[in-house]
Amino acid sequence: MKSIELKPPYLIFVGDAVENSYAKTGLGMVEWRRDLCKGQLSLPEGTVDLGLPAMTLEQASAAGIESLIIGTAAVGGSIPDSWLDILSEAAIRGIDIVAGVHTLLNDIPRLREAAAQTGARLIDVRVPPKTLPVGTGRKRSGRRILMVGTDCALGKKYTALALEKDMKAAGMNADFRASGQTGIMIAGTGIPIDAVVGDFISGAAEILSPDNCPDHWDVIEGQGGIFHPGYSSVSMGLLVGSQPDAFIVCHEAGRTHILGWDDFELPSIEQVIGRTIAIGSQINKEIRCVGVSVNTSSLNNEEREAYLSALSARVGLPCVDPLKNGTRPIINLLNKEFSF
Amino acid sequence: MKSIELKPPYLIFVGDAVENSYAKTGLGMVEWRRDLCKGQLSLPEGTVDLGLPAMTLEQASAAGIESLIIGTAAVGGSIPDSWLDILSEAAIRGIDIVAGVHTLLNDIPRLREAAAQTGARLIDVRVPPKTLPVGTGRKRSGRRILMVGTDCALGKKYTALALEKDMKAAGMNADFRASGQTGIMIAGTGIPIDAVVGDFISGAAEILSPDNCPDHWDVIEGQGGIFHPGYSSVSMGLLVGSQPDAFIVCHEAGRTHILGWDDFELPSIEQVIGRTIAIGSQINKEIRCVGVSVNTSSLNNEEREAYLSALSARVGLPCVDPLKNGTRPIINLLNKEFSF
Repeated sequence: MKSIELKPPYLIFVGDAVENSYAKTGLGMVEWRRDLCKGQLSLPEGTVDLGLPAMTLEQASAAGIESLIIGTAAVGGSIPDSWLDILSEAAIRGIDIVAGVHTLLNDIPRLREAAAQTGARLIDVRVPPKTLPVGTGRKRSGRRILMVGTDCALGKKYTALALEKDMKAAGMNADFRASGQTGIMIAGTGIPIDAVVGDFISGAAEILSPDNCPDHWDVIEGQGGIFHPGYSSVSMGLLVGSQPDAFIVCHEAGRTHILGWDDFELPSIEQVIGRTIAIGSQINKEIRCVGVSVNTSSLNNEEREAYLSALSARVGLPCVDPLKNGTRPIINLLNKEFSF
Repeated sequence: MKSIELKPPYLIFVGDAVENSYAKTGLGMVEWRRDLCKGQLSLPEGTVDLGLPAMTLEQASAAGIESLIIGTAAVGGSIPDSWLDILSEAAIRGIDIVAGVHTLLNDIPRLREAAAQTGARLIDVRVPPKTLPVGTGRKRSGRRILMVGTDCALGKKYTALALEKDMKAAGMNADFRASGQTGIMIAGTGIPIDAVVGDFISGAAEILSPDNCPDHWDVIEGQGGIFHPGYSSVSMGLLVGSQPDAFIVCHEAGRTHILGWDDFELPSIEQVIGRTIAIGSQINKEIRCVGVSVNTSSLNNEEREAYLSALSARVGLPCVDPLKNGTRPIINLLNKEFSF
């Protein structure tokens, strides 16, 4: 098995979190995979409510829960000692434990011992599979659409998930492909591309979107940014290995500089389109941009409509905020450009 | 310490090798760092002669040898059991053991125990330092020249070492910076960039060529190829993190396709120049190409001269085979373009 694979149904553990902002993973799971999430479990002091039925571990066993997902982050990304009673008991019940926090489950002896008793798995979604290949560049069947960004942290994962949802609603054959830890927990499978060793990044991206039916779309979560001073290697390998037919540029309205790299101006959307086509066409000459997804959370309704229509006129492509408009205009172009 | 650092002087171990082609590392050490190599040591059945004085471990201790370098590769990149008596004895004598083969020294319990007795280090040059940073893109002082290639395995390391040698002979302040295992053994320091996790590749490249005097040149060994279907991530991070002022394109005369990726035509030298400038200028707007280094081993003298002069006319840059011509024409252009 080259990708991480989680087993549903899930129990979401939110520990002692008292603010929703610490439970982003859990909230994302519920937003995008509500049907797989059967319950939530907190410590007594926790107050976060994901809107799922509260469930004890005993109830979880009875309900056939296969995986406990750690849906919250403690300060510093650790796994506090106060969580270990519950996590150990879950493992002893044969429930897989899944985490994407900084501390690795597999580095905690007590959890390793508990899991060994039943064969429960400790799945650290930050850790890529061990035996990834070097990229071959071989053309795969099926279609692929990749999210790329003018920067990090501006909605690439959200856009991909919204697109998958809208494509499925339109009767299309599509799957979200996760390349980062939160995405992997939502998708239940994927590879944390940013944790892969350089020589194997494009190979990992090839594994992530394997051969498929001719009418199938892989909707691939992007990482980093091709102009990013720190993370462009990851974006490069993901682009080359994904061999996308189409891509969407993700952007945040009003962002002028690379987040955390204040000396670097954000590339323009046109620059990102140009560079992505230049590199992507090495592997897939058909590559083209089919839209721009803009995080407009800083704009009011009127400003948003003005921004998106001006941008659309400028770049000649559908421009949407998927949170507000959905992705239908992009899907329409996709269906026009790629007929089966 | 963020880079690997070897301690000279060296004893080169060539095991039971009977053919020079298995002792490329040892031969490279002697070719480029003869003064640091004080002796050679074989097993009784070994016949490879690096031209160094034969030396027992007892003599090595007396001569103040600090490191035993494994200068040969066994079939499959392993460390055969038949080597362990000698390697253990060296470690017990307090001599560091250095290897770049596939099997890790640190995975062999007998060697770990021997080294623990004296504090000798087991240095696997394929393993990058653990705490590498994310690239900052911060402008560093001093100058940098990077080798880039139309492909892998066509002379990037050789070109960099020849350039360092010729620059030093011309009285310039220059240092070879190794980004691969053999280069690291020759330089005595460096980072195996292709083994670094994606998020830290450009950061590793920044560590590799730190701030320096204004008139100092880092001569940086390249990796992979920016058009390579498997290794472009590594080339991307090395280019962005090195923030080179200048670069040399390395090429092999007659190569038409990417080695081992027969469906991929080699990019042209002009394409490599264009893409390298496009990406490199994100970090250093001054970046320019100062020459082409061609491996002409498949050509005779007459063909070589014709090839290089035609290429030079085509690209408008000095073109040399460093093994035959040295790198002086490139250094002349470098000095003309960059005055201090």
